[in-house]
Amino acid sequence: MFFRSHWVCGGSRSGFSLESMRLITMEDVRTASEAIRGTAVRTPLLPVPTLSGASGGFWVKPENLQPIGAFKIRGAHNALVALGPSRAARGVVTHSSGNHGQALAYAARVLGVPCVVVSPENAAPVKVAAMRDLGAEVVLVGLDERLDTAEEIAADRGMALIPPFDHPDVIAGQGTVGLEILEDLPDVDVVLVPVGGGGLAAGVSTAVKALRPRTVVLGVEPGLAADAQESLVAGELMAWPAARTSRTVADGLRSTSLSELTFAHLKEHLDGIVTVSEEEIKSAMRELVRAARLVAEPSGAVTTAAYLAGRTPPGRTVAVVSGGNTDPAFLATLL
Amino acid sequence: MFFRSHWVCGGSRSGFSLESMRLITMEDVRTASEAIRGTAVRTPLLPVPTLSGASGGFWVKPENLQPIGAFKIRGAHNALVALGPSRAARGVVTHSSGNHGQALAYAARVLGVPCVVVSPENAAPVKVAAMRDLGAEVVLVGLDERLDTAEEIAADRGMALIPPFDHPDVIAGQGTVGLEILEDLPDVDVVLVPVGGGGLAAGVSTAVKALRPRTVVLGVEPGLAADAQESLVAGELMAWPAARTSRTVADGLRSTSLSELTFAHLKEHLDGIVTVSEEEIKSAMRELVRAARLVAEPSGAVTTAAYLAGRTPPGRTVAVVSGGNTDPAFLATLL
Repeated sequence: MFFRSHWVCGGSRSGFSLESMRLITMEDVRTASEAIRGTAVRTPLLPVPTLSGASGGFWVKPENLQPIGAFKIRGAHNALVALGPSRAARGVVTHSSGNHGQALAYAARVLGVPCVVVSPENAAPVKVAAMRDLGAEVVLVGLDERLDTAEEIAADRGMALIPPFDHPDVIAGQGTVGLEILEDLPDVDVVLVPVGGGGLAAGVSTAVKALRPRTVVLGVEPGLAADAQESLVAGELMAWPAARTSRTVADGLRSTSLSELTFAHLKEHLDGIVTVSEEEIKSAMRELVRAARLVAEPSGAVTTAAYLAGRTPPGRTVAVVSGGNTDPAFLATLL
Repeated sequence: MFFRSHWVCGGSRSGFSLESMRLITMEDVRTASEAIRGTAVRTPLLPVPTLSGASGGFWVKPENLQPIGAFKIRGAHNALVALGPSRAARGVVTHSSGNHGQALAYAARVLGVPCVVVSPENAAPVKVAAMRDLGAEVVLVGLDERLDTAEEIAADRGMALIPPFDHPDVIAGQGTVGLEILEDLPDVDVVLVPVGGGGLAAGVSTAVKALRPRTVVLGVEPGLAADAQESLVAGELMAWPAARTSRTVADGLRSTSLSELTFAHLKEHLDGIVTVSEEEIKSAMRELVRAARLVAEPSGAVTTAAYLAGRTPPGRTVAVVSGGNTDPAFLATLL
């Protein structure tokens, strides 16, 4: 386990200047909460009694139950609404390994605006198909060309670029997950949130710390894609090459590194980072089926994995299950 | 499909007298809604865009997400609360094929009172284990001895018998599912609810018809256990022998026939009964995993099966997914 005290030395923050970048606030999260109402599902907290053990209680926040199967609908819809009607009408473009692309396609369909998604060639076929079913134009490119291609399309077609995590409106939208957790369990002790690009962890930690500073908020990532942990230890962004992180089964957390913006939020609000093994992720997927009747994708199961591995502090614990878009055939091999 | 007009002839109700039996009311359902708060999860309605087709919209009410994996927690907890503290303190006993037993065990643990569950010897092992884990004493008997054994234990130990469906407080508790559906989707056109013993269908149809009489409420059962449909056609209770209904994969809907009390509610409120095949049930389980990220047990998937088979009227449709307690190995064979 890796806790805050190890990366904050003497109160200084490794040369990082808060003045250089505005962090989102609780007010932004509350605005997002209004904006997403009716599009994102207000998911409940689900107690999982058979996994609670002696921990004080274990709940999951089932974001896999969102219409597109992941929390990303929150940030995508909030960012689209924040554009305003005339800007949104010209359409939106993004680069995404899948869930954000589906989310933006869904939100664009709700608002009736065009949407282009630039995806890596190795994206899960089930996710690409889902985006096309939602009416999006999907452009497949090499892993390293995603951002450039999206920017080109934005410039050529006059579309707004809504990145998967590196955007304050996206982060504020994801923060509504944290707001809702505190609404439903005001005395929660520990909140566990997956870290890929860091948008969800940035938003959730902002909201939880604003509402209950003593609650411990931990990020979770696969040991095979522990670039966020390494970055927080180093005090600067450490990007792992995609070829390295591609070894993890958690496809939603590979090929993504923190941005300066999400990194700044995590340094400010997160209490630590926990890593999990590939076997622990698969085992957590099985347990979520058996004990919570939920289908989680590997990236969505990392928080439950950290809890079940005993790698988190005691107390009333909420694991954010971030998504459920996994191949049924892969799930079958685990059961 | 089988609709009300076929079983109500000339306004008479086949000699059945409403005076002989008090049906539950919307007021009973509202009382139950208060009683179960904090024990049962307030489940959301989940839109399932990829299954919506041209129907006007398709939502599931995911009761598989209750702490014991099924809606039964609602009726069991309401009935236990309705006993009052001194009566409840002496303990409760029931007979159940599984989910009601788990529900009563869970509610009894919440309230700190003893619980005995009489289960058939062919009950799913996963359900028996779950009841024991919840602290209940489980007594396994032959299918036809369940009720007698439960009554003996109630008499011998001074415990209250809380049957799985043949009880007004249980029916009122299940009715909260219908109340919540109308709270979340006030203009719902069609509500689909599984029929086993009829407690859920009785409660849900009572609530939905009280709040929006024009909404069509249809029961769904496997063709291999279509005793409720046959009873409503005949105008009198037609019990199928357990050996006959045991052929369906929907274990929660076998070995249960309507009671006089649930039958009376269904005659009063239900618009019809739809049946589904075994293959349609299994296909719906697959679709719920893929499109809604939910693990449903076969009994919980019958409503989605009826909708996907095109056997329900057009319009904004809600399928109650009643439970999710299925063997992961069986689920794997379907995926």
